Amino acid sequence: MTQALKGIQVLDFTHVLAGPIATNHLALQGADVIKVESAAGDTMRNYGGQAFADGLAPSFVSVNAGKRSIVLDLKRGDHLDIARRLVARADVVMENFRPGVMDRLGLGYDACRALRPDIVYCSVSGFGQAGPLKGHPAIDQIIQSMSGLMTLSGEAGSPSMRVGFPIVDTFTGLLAAFATTAALLERARTGQGQMVDVAMLDAALVMMVSVAGPCLAAGVRPRKQGNLGYSNSPTADTFPTASGEITLGVVRQDQFEKFCHAIERSDLPEDERFLDRHARQKNGAALRSELIATLARHTALEWELRLGRAGVAASAVREVHEALEHPQVAQRGLRRNVRLPDGQLTQVLGAGFTGRGHEAADSAPPPRLGEHTRQVLAELGCAPAEIEQLCA
Amino acid sequence: MTQALKGIQVLDFTHVLAGPIATNHLALQGADVIKVESAAGDTMRNYGGQAFADGLAPSFVSVNAGKRSIVLDLKRGDHLDIARRLVARADVVMENFRPGVMDRLGLGYDACRALRPDIVYCSVSGFGQAGPLKGHPAIDQIIQSMSGLMTLSGEAGSPSMRVGFPIVDTFTGLLAAFATTAALLERARTGQGQMVDVAMLDAALVMMVSVAGPCLAAGVRPRKQGNLGYSNSPTADTFPTASGEITLGVVRQDQFEKFCHAIERSDLPEDERFLDRHARQKNGAALRSELIATLARHTALEWELRLGRAGVAASAVREVHEALEHPQVAQRGLRRNVRLPDGQLTQVLGAGFTGRGHEAADSAPPPRLGEHTRQVLAELGCAPAEIEQLCA
Repeated sequence: MTQALKGIQVLDFTHVLAGPIATNHLALQGADVIKVESAAGDTMRNYGGQAFADGLAPSFVSVNAGKRSIVLDLKRGDHLDIARRLVARADVVMENFRPGVMDRLGLGYDACRALRPDIVYCSVSGFGQAGPLKGHPAIDQIIQSMSGLMTLSGEAGSPSMRVGFPIVDTFTGLLAAFATTAALLERARTGQGQMVDVAMLDAALVMMVSVAGPCLAAGVRPRKQGNLGYSNSPTADTFPTASGEITLGVVRQDQFEKFCHAIERSDLPEDERFLDRHARQKNGAALRSELIATLARHTALEWELRLGRAGVAASAVREVHEALEHPQVAQRGLRRNVRLPDGQLTQVLGAGFTGRGHEAADSAPPPRLGEHTRQVLAELGCAPAEIEQLCA
Repeated sequence: MTQALKGIQVLDFTHVLAGPIATNHLALQGADVIKVESAAGDTMRNYGGQAFADGLAPSFVSVNAGKRSIVLDLKRGDHLDIARRLVARADVVMENFRPGVMDRLGLGYDACRALRPDIVYCSVSGFGQAGPLKGHPAIDQIIQSMSGLMTLSGEAGSPSMRVGFPIVDTFTGLLAAFATTAALLERARTGQGQMVDVAMLDAALVMMVSVAGPCLAAGVRPRKQGNLGYSNSPTADTFPTASGEITLGVVRQDQFEKFCHAIERSDLPEDERFLDRHARQKNGAALRSELIATLARHTALEWELRLGRAGVAASAVREVHEALEHPQVAQRGLRRNVRLPDGQLTQVLGAGFTGRGHEAADSAPPPRLGEHTRQVLAELGCAPAEIEQLCA
């Protein structure tokens, strides 16, 4: 793992998904992330049915490993004082409450800047800290609906369909991590902190830049076209095989010829219906029929191997668990071992990038609720008696 | 706009999408991005049918505004020498050729590090710089197929379906921008550069952390469930109305009661079939029927307004062009004016986040192919005669 953010202390007031994903990216780069939780804890601690232990649901473990947890009741004066002392030591404050909540708690940007003048303060919300929708409630699927995202996937004419996992939360989290890191870089140059305001709606549109960009620039409307590639080549699509499906990325003439050779259909490029890209688009249905008949001779995994050797872009349609088992993923160090507090060994995903000299490393465990309360208080210089009082 | 990366020079050898998206994020933060192109230019310059002008397709403009373009033939000795002189002045090299290509050109990491010892060198590829699939061809839909992404969206039992835009390219681009910025921060602290290796397959799995994480940690298999929310609440779903569809994010009991009041169906929370969350899940079909009958009384936009006022999470299903017109988006400064070389005014998306004191700014124009060749050569100190020779 890299240690790009080594020495950076992040005071993390986030919960559920987009915020914790943001601070997970920072933790994976070596930041010391102190997760501030209420006595009830982040609700993700108990998400889904398969918890490893009380408060350690797999969804929580996946994006909170390596953070520390401190329990504070921010409506209690002595606890708020601790939060303020932590702000004074922090490089970054990250929060994803509804706009206004941190201000009311006395932990808004202005208050934090008074405690720590060069603080990088990042707020994550549905719609942002200003504007007509400021403060409106939002969850991932609301933003998928509002942003246009639900109108992009599926066959032409099919009903609106969201992306089947919280992609807006995920993209927003990474965008917040990027914005925060850029702000830290600016601070390194200028000595100035800043307030960064990340909204899920904005993030969703930036995520869709490949369609929202041309739409904004020139009024180009996106079209749904199932699994047919953006090239509109009938050979950039997904096909059934003897077992499983295979996706091909065959676009250019040389790729088509190489592909036909690899599937022992060298007749196809000589067929006048498929002579060039234009002809193939015109006769796409006929070409698809020919290919389905041929691809039925082997399984998707067999074709993937054969086509890969021939240098043709092709992949079997895998499920997520199969992808995680792929030797390529193992070799990249994307799976990191983590030992849970009860001693059980499991794995979490790494940063998603590696580098020369980076070594696959184990991850520190996910924190139990309040596991580091006393440790963090001691680091603040609290005396044992004070710690007892605060934990009472 | 922020100027977090002001003074950072990025030598950009990328083309098409993931790489140019990465450098677009850096350019939006104030980096000076010099886009190195062959005489043919980035193929995205001519993508789609609605180009503003020769080589300025909307898709290209969307992710290349504010960069500079220099044309170099890297197989020509004098041009390669210019590239090497540019590396020596750069902070970042970004490239997305197939693994090995930059090495063969004499511009691999080791060669660049010899020219600029603290260079941050970021390679973006389908599968990474090592491993059994190193060098295999990949485009967005191949990675969507291999990573499991195609098995996540749609109704239970529906066919494999990709996300209908190049989401893997987009996420990979942002991840590369984050990795690069983190590496720059590390350089600011240690003085050391590094080589960063970003793979689309890894990025796709990190993008899916909300399902890939629990799968890796505890074997939890994701399930497709159409537009029904992750909460499995029948009121977190998408519904038809008198005109258009509406998505609701109603999960908790207090939210359900508030929602029923807002739609003038205060009878529902008292109906024993819908008394609590468990009962509502059990009688989800009956509740859906009741809601469809009631929601048919108004349009989706009318409901959105009414529910928004009541503090209920709800959004009409919009198309992308409608989302871009939303007053909230206008107010956030996400749309940036850009004047094209022919004088025409258009817009591109901004960074996707803002901050206190950030002002909405215009964007510098997208570069015509080779528009800045002479300017960049002059900055390198080339004499006029040398410039003429290089441009011949």
